[in-house]
Amino acid sequence: MSNAARWTHPATEVLQVGTGFRLADVDADATPGYTGGKSDGATDLAEGITRLGDLQERLFAEHVDGGTRDGVLLVLQAMDSAGKGGIVRHVVGGVDPQGVALAAFKAPTDEERAHDFLWRIEKRVPAHGLIGVFDRSHYEDVLIARVRTLAPEDEIERRYGAIVDFEKRVADSGIRIVKVMLHISRDEQKARLMARLDRPEKQWKFNPGDTDERLHWDDYMAAYQTVFERTSTPEAPWHVIPANRKWYARLGVQELLLAALQDIDPQWPKARYDVEAEKKRLAAS
Amino acid sequence: MSNAARWTHPATEVLQVGTGFRLADVDADATPGYTGGKSDGATDLAEGITRLGDLQERLFAEHVDGGTRDGVLLVLQAMDSAGKGGIVRHVVGGVDPQGVALAAFKAPTDEERAHDFLWRIEKRVPAHGLIGVFDRSHYEDVLIARVRTLAPEDEIERRYGAIVDFEKRVADSGIRIVKVMLHISRDEQKARLMARLDRPEKQWKFNPGDTDERLHWDDYMAAYQTVFERTSTPEAPWHVIPANRKWYARLGVQELLLAALQDIDPQWPKARYDVEAEKKRLAAS
Repeated sequence: MSNAARWTHPATEVLQVGTGFRLADVDADATPGYTGGKSDGATDLAEGITRLGDLQERLFAEHVDGGTRDGVLLVLQAMDSAGKGGIVRHVVGGVDPQGVALAAFKAPTDEERAHDFLWRIEKRVPAHGLIGVFDRSHYEDVLIARVRTLAPEDEIERRYGAIVDFEKRVADSGIRIVKVMLHISRDEQKARLMARLDRPEKQWKFNPGDTDERLHWDDYMAAYQTVFERTSTPEAPWHVIPANRKWYARLGVQELLLAALQDIDPQWPKARYDVEAEKKRLAAS
Repeated sequence: MSNAARWTHPATEVLQVGTGFRLADVDADATPGYTGGKSDGATDLAEGITRLGDLQERLFAEHVDGGTRDGVLLVLQAMDSAGKGGIVRHVVGGVDPQGVALAAFKAPTDEERAHDFLWRIEKRVPAHGLIGVFDRSHYEDVLIARVRTLAPEDEIERRYGAIVDFEKRVADSGIRIVKVMLHISRDEQKARLMARLDRPEKQWKFNPGDTDERLHWDDYMAAYQTVFERTSTPEAPWHVIPANRKWYARLGVQELLLAALQDIDPQWPKARYDVEAEKKRLAAS
C-alpha cells in the first residue's frame, strides 16, 4: 500500500481512527509513518501526482467503457485555515479536471434547509469513474450544528445514525469513501489567521466570525471526537491527519487517495470493437 | 494584451473571426501571431499558468467580497481528437479547481430533449467569480444537429438567433464569453485516431462512430462556417485556433483567457472590517 520508500507504515493504518482513538492525544506537529522532511515531501508529492493521474484516468476509462461502478469520495473536514483549500489545489489539482467533481458546502440555502440535511449531499455524490471531493460536508450538520445549537439535540442525535446508513449505501454502490479531518493546533490557527490579517491580498479570506468560532475551540474538538466515535465505520473510516505541517497533510491525503484507487485497481478496458478492421476502415476514410 | 515577448500580435486579434472569414482558408498547421517554437511554447505556457492562477484568484476574491459580477466562460468546440481534453488538462488544469466550473455536454438525455436546447445550457452557466468551461456546448445543436438532421431545418434556423440572444444576456450579466474552435486538418485527425487504435491504453477513447463522422467532414466544416457567420458577435466573438500543433493551440487558448481576465482586471478587495482591531481580538483569543 505504501507508495514511497519514506513511508515506514501505510498512511491508511497510521492515520485511521481506531478503537479508543482520542483526538486530544494527536500531536498536530507530527508526521506519523513518514521519515522524510519537507523537501522529501515535495518530491514524493510530485511523484504521487503522476501516479494518481494515471490511476484516475484508468478509473475514468473503465467507467466510460461501462466496466466499473467504482468511484472515490474524499470528505474534507477541518477547523478554519487548516488547509482544505491547499489540499484541493495541490493534491486534487494535480488530477485531470475532467476526472474530478468538487463540491463545496457552505451554509445551507432556504431550499436546502427545507429538506433533510442529506438532501443536498446526495445530489453531489460523485458519479462512478470520478474522484469526488467534499469541501466541508454533511458533518457540518453535527459539528457547527451541535456547537452552535442550530438543531435540537434529538435531531443531532438522529443524524449520526442517518450518516452511517447513508455512507454505507454510497459505499455499497461502489464509491470508496475517504474521510479526512485535517488537524491543526489552536496556536497554529491563530498564527495562520494572523498571517491573513497581515497580508492585504489575504485579508478577503478573513472573517471576523473566524475569531468568534475560535472561542468555541474545545466544543468543536469535543464534537469531532463524538463524530469519530459515532461515524467511523469499516465502510467509511475516519482519518485524522496532523496538519500543522502543510506538506505532510498534503502527502497524507495523497497517500489515502492512492490507496483507495489501488484498492479499486482500475484497468485499461479492452476494445469492444475489431481493432484491425477499424484501422482499415479509418485508413480508407 | 500580449502576454509574452514571442507574441507579435495579440491572440485576440489574429485568432478572432472577422468579416469575410473563411474557415477553408485557415492553415491548421500555422502558429499565427507567435514567433516561437514548441519549446518556447512550453515555457510561455508554464509562465502563463502562474499569471492565470493569480488573476483567477483575484476574480474569486472580488466575488466572495461581493464586489464583482464578472466571470469567464470558455466555450470549446472541435472535431473529435482536436485536443479539447488537452486544453482542459493543460490550460484549465493549471488553475485552482475551486475557481473552475467544468461542464461536458454529451448527447442530451430524454429530460433535456423534452426542453428547449438552451435549458440544459443555462443551468451550467458559470457563477460570477469563476472560470467556466463548456466542453462541447449548445453549438452541437447547430452542428451535429444540422449535419445529421437531428432537428427540422426551421428549428435549426431558429437556434442561431436564440443563441445570439442568449449569449448577449449572459455577457450583459458580466460573463466574458470566449468561444474557441480548435481546428485540425482531416489528415491530422486520421493520424490521431490511428494513434488511439495503435495504443491499448488509448483504445477506449476510440469509437467506431468516429470514422463515420469523418465521412461528413465537409458538411461539418460548412456547418462551422455558418456558425461563425451567424453567431460571432461583439459580445461573444468566435476564435478559430489552428490546432495541428497542440502546443500552439494550448498557448492560444491561454492567451485568450488571460486577455479576458485582464479585461476584467480584478483587484484584491479591501478589508470590510477594522484590520487592527481584529488583530487585537485574534491575539487575545
